[in-house]
Amino acid sequence: MKKKLFWSCIALALGAGCALTAVAQVKPDVLVGQRQAVMKLQGKYFGPLVGMLKGTVPYNAEIVQRNALYLDVLDKMPWDGFVESTKGEANTWALPAVYDEPAKFKQAQEQLQSAVSQLVTVSKGGDEAAVKAAIGNVGKACGNCHDNFRKK
Amino acid sequence: MKKKLFWSCIALALGAGCALTAVAQVKPDVLVGQRQAVMKLQGKYFGPLVGMLKGTVPYNAEIVQRNALYLDVLDKMPWDGFVESTKGEANTWALPAVYDEPAKFKQAQEQLQSAVSQLVTVSKGGDEAAVKAAIGNVGKACGNCHDNFRKK
Repeated sequence: MKKKLFWSCIALALGAGCALTAVAQVKPDVLVGQRQAVMKLQGKYFGPLVGMLKGTVPYNAEIVQRNALYLDVLDKMPWDGFVESTKGEANTWALPAVYDEPAKFKQAQEQLQSAVSQLVTVSKGGDEAAVKAAIGNVGKACGNCHDNFRKK
Repeated sequence: MKKKLFWSCIALALGAGCALTAVAQVKPDVLVGQRQAVMKLQGKYFGPLVGMLKGTVPYNAEIVQRNALYLDVLDKMPWDGFVESTKGEANTWALPAVYDEPAKFKQAQEQLQSAVSQLVTVSKGGDEAAVKAAIGNVGKACGNCHDNFRKK
């Protein structure tokens, strides 16, 4: 029975498009789907913080702290999926600049990771203004990368 | 300029289907999409560990350690998206049991979280057999939840 459960899980994990081998061997559409999954979840957890900054969502220090920690993991996930083999995929919003300007793309990733790390640190304190400034910097890092590497 | 970048980011974040307000107010199809995004990423990071257990992927203790930490965050993300309003969504694989047996569903979540926590702990040591046993337990927890709460 345990065996059965375990193997059914494996089959399901495979169905979900997991990478059993090196990223280079994963199908391009799977890689794009995984990248987009990360972006979607970054939206889920960053969206409310933007709302708090704009005043459309009540400020909640605990949610900021939790979401910052989630974002600090999510912002490490999409990048290995941006490989040349995905260039021709129909559903990707990535611009050719991702592959043509790898150093600049890497810098944009690091800007995001650094801004999120800063938000994690600041969110542990009780300074709401500082937290909101840090949220703003994460937003700028999102915007910087999207403006240069994502279709409008 | 900074302002422009920031607001363009906000617009994009919204486009990605983020939750600006309480989960209850987020559209059901957005919630389903976010849940599925988490499952997809759990597949991305658990898949290679299954491969290591089966011997189809070379064992790599560093990747196990990293993926275990990612899974330890991902396994906290999908559950708030399983709300009654999503019951009628066409694209969901969730069975009615999710809403009809909340205590059992909660228990299945906790089984996964506990198995992943255990994998995080064990993966910090150097005992490959223990790591593989812990991977197996995560697989069982996936399978247990899928068998009871997910369409075949």
